[in-house]
Formats: sequence, structure tokens, C-alpha cells
Amino acid sequence: MAKNIKTRAQDYAQWYLDVIKAAQLADYGPVRGCMVIRPEGYAIWEAIQRDLDRRFKETGHVNAYFPLLIPQSFLTKEAQHVEGFAMECAVVTHSRLQKDPADPTQLKPASPLEEPLIIRPTSETVIGHMYAQWIQSYRDLPVLINQWCNVMRWEMRTRLFLRTSEFLWQEGHTAHETPEQAEDETRRMLDVYADFVQEILAIPVIKGRKTDAEKFPGADVTYCIEALMQDGKALQAGTSHNLGQNFSKAFDIKFAGRDQKQQHVYTTSWGVSTRLIGAMIMAHSDDDGLVLPPRVAPVVAAVVPIWKTDEEKATVRSFIESIIVQLVGSDEFNRAAKRQGSDDLASYFFDPVTHQKIVVDWRDVRPGDKHYHWEQRGVPFRIEAGPRDVAGGAFVLKSRLDRAAKVGTPVMNVSRSWLEGLLLDMQAKMFASAQAFATSNIRDASSYEEMKNLLADKGGFVRCFFKPDKAAEARIKEETKATVRCIPFEQTSTRGKCIVSGEDCDTQVLFAQAY
Amino acid sequence: MAKNIKTRAQDYAQWYLDVIKAAQLADYGPVRGCMVIRPEGYAIWEAIQRDLDRRFKETGHVNAYFPLLIPQSFLTKEAQHVEGFAMECAVVTHSRLQKDPADPTQLKPASPLEEPLIIRPTSETVIGHMYAQWIQSYRDLPVLINQWCNVMRWEMRTRLFLRTSEFLWQEGHTAHETPEQAEDETRRMLDVYADFVQEILAIPVIKGRKTDAEKFPGADVTYCIEALMQDGKALQAGTSHNLGQNFSKAFDIKFAGRDQKQQHVYTTSWGVSTRLIGAMIMAHSDDDGLVLPPRVAPVVAAVVPIWKTDEEKATVRSFIESIIVQLVGSDEFNRAAKRQGSDDLASYFFDPVTHQKIVVDWRDVRPGDKHYHWEQRGVPFRIEAGPRDVAGGAFVLKSRLDRAAKVGTPVMNVSRSWLEGLLLDMQAKMFASAQAFATSNIRDASSYEEMKNLLADKGGFVRCFFKPDKAAEARIKEETKATVRCIPFEQTSTRGKCIVSGEDCDTQVLFAQAY
Repeated sequence: MAKNIKTRAQDYAQWYLDVIKAAQLADYGPVRGCMVIRPEGYAIWEAIQRDLDRRFKETGHVNAYFPLLIPQSFLTKEAQHVEGFAMECAVVTHSRLQKDPADPTQLKPASPLEEPLIIRPTSETVIGHMYAQWIQSYRDLPVLINQWCNVMRWEMRTRLFLRTSEFLWQEGHTAHETPEQAEDETRRMLDVYADFVQEILAIPVIKGRKTDAEKFPGADVTYCIEALMQDGKALQAGTSHNLGQNFSKAFDIKFAGRDQKQQHVYTTSWGVSTRLIGAMIMAHSDDDGLVLPPRVAPVVAAVVPIWKTDEEKATVRSFIESIIVQLVGSDEFNRAAKRQGSDDLASYFFDPVTHQKIVVDWRDVRPGDKHYHWEQRGVPFRIEAGPRDVAGGAFVLKSRLDRAAKVGTPVMNVSRSWLEGLLLDMQAKMFASAQAFATSNIRDASSYEEMKNLLADKGGFVRCFFKPDKAAEARIKEETKATVRCIPFEQTSTRGKCIVSGEDCDTQVLFAQAY
Repeated sequence: MAKNIKTRAQDYAQWYLDVIKAAQLADYGPVRGCMVIRPEGYAIWEAIQRDLDRRFKETGHVNAYFPLLIPQSFLTKEAQHVEGFAMECAVVTHSRLQKDPADPTQLKPASPLEEPLIIRPTSETVIGHMYAQWIQSYRDLPVLINQWCNVMRWEMRTRLFLRTSEFLWQEGHTAHETPEQAEDETRRMLDVYADFVQEILAIPVIKGRKTDAEKFPGADVTYCIEALMQDGKALQAGTSHNLGQNFSKAFDIKFAGRDQKQQHVYTTSWGVSTRLIGAMIMAHSDDDGLVLPPRVAPVVAAVVPIWKTDEEKATVRSFIESIIVQLVGSDEFNRAAKRQGSDDLASYFFDPVTHQKIVVDWRDVRPGDKHYHWEQRGVPFRIEAGPRDVAGGAFVLKSRLDRAAKVGTPVMNVSRSWLEGLLLDMQAKMFASAQAFATSNIRDASSYEEMKNLLADKGGFVRCFFKPDKAAEARIKEETKATVRCIPFEQTSTRGKCIVSGEDCDTQVLFAQAY
């Protein structure tokens, strides 16, 4: 067992942080609640962005960039409709920093702004403001824009990736001519998210609709994908909102229709964030550290050479180099030699588009330490080769999914497609295993008592008939810490009794405690 | 002449804004000086990012993300060394917005922060702070990190892309064991920038070193690439700084060397920004609007169908569809049919990786209007096809570079590689033409009088011998508005007389007025 990582059984919350630290995915920065995403973590975000962005474009969307700062007046409008409005956010009040006349060794904000500006907690309002200018006629519709950016919400209790004051996300904001088109778009993007999370992050998700108590306040309908973590808690992995005309009325986004009449557009919004990295860690990692789905692994294979003498090192080196050439091609092998980087870690691009790498660990440390090193970083495969392997023309292949298994692999079998095949297999295995876990953690309850007991004893999702009701949901949350995660699209039965009221009911929901 | 675009001769500054507006590249947002980058403009930034990012990774760099907000104390240290320090920047002083007790229809900043936070004008300080924690030994070096992000500097006079309060950029920050490695890196990244700007943006650049008066204050040496705009003003397109140990000493970034002794690392930093889009517009566009280098054009070809009757429209449609299939393949043709979007503008991905498109303009407007539309958007090629073209089995091909030229093209010649060839040719022509312009606008002066006259009469670069000197440079700037753009690496002569002091001098410099 790794000494720097608590086990999940010992302390699940600490295990999560230890996994992140051991894999060097992220750190807290100097400002409370703000995260530094280190290169190994950011490469995962880049893989997420690359794949999702392709899916957005394949469904007709384009990217744009809207300003970071939002005038306070834009939020005033929203606040006027909300009882006891308060927003934890970063407020910019000055446009200058200068030496403090009272103490010239210190600085002081100067040039107060006429109107305070807010760092975007979401860009809904500023995008609405621009759409009102851009959209004139039905010929300008649909508008299908996405934005990749940073946002801020001042959080009291933060947790790396899952909840930080600043985070990275994408926010889609679309405008349509008809309510049907807006609904189609909302569902389309939910499907894009579900496919992405399942295919790329290897996390099974349940698609469904939020209850009124849980939906985004400005939305007519909120759809979501919900995933199950290893501790039995649910995690909302993405949401897609049909905003109807609520937003277009607030921001006066109108167009001349085919009938020449002025009318308000129908809008949607949808988003996922760096939270997905947290979900991925919690869904797959183990007591030895990070386990990465191959599709997002920055390093797909780490090679660990074993030697004692300089002569052995030279022999092993030429053996390993021939393996590398077989895997990445001689062009890349030669390019890599000229590329600047650490002497100790030679790295080669396995995929020239995604820049996923193969690394050879030439550090002068014990092979055992190297194993831990790459294991804790979640690298899918390790290749081990020492003098005896060279003699036998084979090497030892270890999979991150199975510490015990060692496979002797003849060098002649090695090629790009050989490794691609292994990576695909591992991706499929990870999804199957997460799927099995999720399926076995959905349990049916026919009474509130039963539900409470299941939640307390087993966690996971509890499926039951329930008539959505704000007051009842608030009470259940207080008593069980569980919320309605969604009304799943897939209903296993069409009629039953509401576990709270006992009335006949046609709505099956999933309850769970959630992140 | 386009009515919505002033000519360059009439009003160069207004022409620039008109070109941007007509091509829908950007708008001002609701906060003064902050820009909305619209989809057509953002797609150019994505092309820039994609290509540059590949070059960064090919030279061994990785990406990471550091927090947006910087503690005021980080800047205090810097301020203590600078006389009369003041910084135009966005200062966050509160973490909450709530209803004003005095007037509940209004909002008010609440929860003042103990220490004000600054929206990053650059991430130098926060990255230095993290490097001090991450770097322990020479084995941790080099650290080769880049960040893509938004930054803010409160600007008084803004101009879309060229100078805005918020802008997008990348900032590379590297740490090295030896001064030689830092210098190599600084020069390597300058070369990466120069190759990128020349090959992708088709803008010739001059590489050189800044004088002490013009360099980044924290740098030992600043290298730059300088480009010439059509009005004869220079524009700094990228900088690469060798920071020596200045920064590592200020932020105490130390490592145990091979000799076991603690020492400070050598750092570099380098950046380019959305300013490059402004440079590209100014370098290539004409009085008809935007001209885009094909390598960054979001739409590589626009097809303009011509018809009168429904029957003609149907005939033209099937003719055009067969052209599209030849250009993008039938898979993409079929995928596009299912993709959501405007009915009026059918779009097809010409390149599945860069998502560059071919668009067919089915709008019910006059063909002449469509020509203006695509011309003003800088689309490299237009394909025009009406009933007569269908009958002849050929269509009219128009190049954005030459309004007069019309080429009749037999349909049978059309293929992906045919269009790729045309795009490559156009890219090369644009570079050659910008190169010819730049070369003919470097003029030699052997006296200050001659230099002043050349600057006043012709603009462009004036090359002369000059002994860099802060006081002299300040005076020259006041008298001519020109600055030393750089000491070019390529010196055409090794010895001459300084145009100011008349002394023997071995430094040739380039003076110009600049953006």
C-alpha cells in the first residue's frame, strides 16, 4: 500500500486529496479556494476539451468569447425577482493600484469605479445582452454559441476540482425560433454530454430531468446526467437547461418572425466543468492512486528500464529504443531526441494530434520507486525491461488495472496498433466495471422507511415512486441528506405509490446523497 | 467600393474598425474597453491556438492553469523597487453582492476582503510563487510551462484586438539550470513565434533585440518580432524575455544543483495575444474588407448559387451538391445534412481537424449582395454557379485576392487536393506580397535629419547606426513619435556613425512609429 495515500476505507475524503497530490494534478494557489491545475491535470482537461469541442462542432455549434466582467446593473435585474438575493462573487470596485500616500511601502486600491463589476459566475446575462443586439430576424436563428472560459463563485468549503472558487468550464447558450427547436437542442446536448462521459471518461451516467426543487431557477426544464462515485454518493456531471422565453423576456431578445411579428426567442444553456476531472478520479481510482481512462491519459505507457552496470544500461537502452521506434515511428523518435526536456524522462508522442505520450524513466532510482511513481499517476501500462528481457527478446507488460498480472511480451509483437488495442480494451474494461458497480447500487424502495434504511446502510441510488414536492424534498434532505437526483428517462415501472404521500403516482425518481 | 467600409486612404483607423465590423469579428461589450470576440473572430483565434500549441508541445512544453486573482502583496514587492509605481488594473475588494438595506431595489458590494486581489495583468508573480514550491533539485529542471488565459490591464484608449482592457493570450514561463539553457529557450521561442507568424498569418517579421529603454523591465534581454502594417507603422507581434535570475531572486526559486549547493534558477517568459488578429487584419485586408490567410480562414470557400425559378434552383442545387461531395466527401456531406443550423447557410467541414468550412449561401438575396458578404468576410475563394454553368459543366471561381479574375473551372477538376492546392498558393502569394511591401519599406538613413524626413515622408522602418541610450531615445520619440523597434539580428553593415552622437558605432537599429 502506498504510504502517501490513505485508503478509501480509512478516509475517503482524504484519499481523494492524496490521489490528486500524488499524481500532481492540482494544488491550491495563494488565494483561498483557488486552484492551480498542474500540467498532468491540465492535460486531462485538454483531452476533455478536445473531444467535447469536436462534438459541439459536429452538432453545429461555434465558439466565441464574452467579457470576464459583468456590470452590477445586469445582476440587479435578476435580484429584483429573487427574495433575499445574495451572491457570493468577486466584486471589482477599483481600476488602479498605487502606493499608499500614508505608507509608501504599501499599495492601495485607487480610482474607484462608478459602477462595481462582477467577475462572471456564468455569462448568461452578458450573452443575453449581446444576443439582443445581434438577433433581428428569424433568419438570424438559430444562434448556437459555446464559450470555454473561467468563472468565479466565492465558495466557503472548497475541494479540488469538485468545488473551487474559480473553475474552468464551457457554457453553451443557444437561441431558437420555436419552443420545439429549443427542446430538441436541450436534449441533444444532454446526449452529447452522456455519450462523452461514458465513451471518454468511462463513467456510466443516468439521464433524467430535475424536479422543480432541484432545477435551475431560470429554466422551464433542467435535464442532467448523474454518476455514482465509489463511496455511494452521486455526482451531477452535466446539466442542460431549456430556458423557454424566461431569459429572452428578461433581456429583451426579440426577432421578427416569418409572420413579420416581433416575438421573443427560445433559449437554452448547458455546461460542464473541471468538476468532471473530480468525477473521473472518484469513479476509477484505487488505493494505489490515480487510475486514468486511456482516452484522457496524458501518458499512455511508461517504460521502466532496469540495469546495474553501465554496460547493462547501454544494452537495455538499445532494446528499449527499438521498442519505442516500433511504437511511435522513427520520425517521432528522432524528433524527440532534439526536443528540450528533462534528461531523466525521455518522452515521445504516441499520438501526434492528442499529444499523448510514452515516457521512458531513466532516473537513477530503484525500479520499485519508479513503479509506484507511474502507478500513482494512473498511467495505463508499464513496460519493464532489464538485461534478462533483452536476452529473451521479450519484456514485462503491466496493466494499471491489475497489479498482479505480468505479461511477457515478445518484442516482435509490438506496434502502434498493438498498444492502441490494449488501450481500447482497458477503456472498455473500465467502463464495464464502473457500469457493474453503478447497476448494483440502484435499489428499489416502496416506502420512506425502506428508502431511509437503504440510504443509511448501502448508499447509492434509491429508486422509488415519488410525487415531486418542494416541501417534502426539503424535509427528506434534512432527514437523510439525500435529494432527488433526477426523474430518470428510463422508468422501470409506470405506476406505484408515492413513498411520502402514499398516493397513486406515475413518477419514479432516484434519491441519493450527492457531491 | 463597399459603402460600409471607409478606404484606407480616407481614414486608416476607421477603415480598420469598419473591416472588423463588416466581418463580424468582434464587438465592444457592456464594460468599457472589454471586447466580445464573435464566432468569426474567435475561429481565427482557435486556428492560432491550435497551430501555436502544437509548436509549443513539439518543443517540449506543457500547459497548465494558474489562478485569475493575485494577492495585492505579490505586487507590493514589485512596487517597492519601482519609483512612482501605479498600475491600471482591476481590483477585487469584496466577495459578496447583496441587496442594499437602504434601497432594496439596488445591489451593494458586501463582505470586504482582508486583502484586495488583482485580476492578473500577467501571471508572472503567481507562477513564480508556485515554482518556488515545486522546484527543489536540478532534477526538477527544466520546467517548461505555458498557459492560455485571459488577462486584464485597464486601458484608457482601446482599439479592438490591438489594445483592450481584457484580452486573451498565452504566457510561457520556464525555469532552467543554467544561463545558457535560459538563453537557448528565449531564442527558441522567438523562432517559434517568427515561424508561426510567417507561415500561418503570412506576415513577414524582423527578429531582433530590444534596447534597454524598450525591454521588459524585469528582463536581462528582450527579443521581439516586429511586423510592418500597411500604413507604415510597426507592430510588435511577440516578445521573448530572458529574465536571468532577476525573477527567481525576487520569488526565491531555488534548487540544489549538481554540486549540492542551493542556487537560483534562470527563467524566461514569452507571450503572444489576440493582438495578432489585429496585426493580421492590418497586414492583409483591403478597401473591400477582410482578407484572411487561408491557414486561419474559418470558411475557405463560399459557394454562391444563382437561380431565378424553382426549377433552376433545383438544377443548380444538384450541381452544387456534387461539387460539395467532391470537395468534402460523401460522409461529411451526409453528416452535414443532419447537423442543426441555419436553413439559409449550408455548411460542410472541409477539414475535420481544424473544422474549416465550405459554405453554400442559399439565402434569398441578390447574388451581388452575397459576393459582398463573403468578400467582406475575407473568404479565400468564391464559387459561383447558375443554370448556364450547370449546362457547361463548369463554374466560376473567384479569388479574394483578385476581384477582376474569374476562372472557369470544369467540375471534373474539383477535388479536395485541388482546393488545398489553391489555398496553399494563395497563402504563399499573400506572404510574398507582404514581404515585398515590408522590404520596400526599410530605408537607410545616415543622419538624424535624414531619418526624420524618411519617417515623416514615407513611414516604414528606418535603418541606421545608433548607440542605444535612454535619454536620446526619449528625445527622438518626442520629436518623431518613433522608437527603436529592435536591434535586428540581421545587420547589413558592421560599422558606421551613430546618427545622434556621430561617434563610431557597431549597432544598427530599426526606428519606426508603432502600434
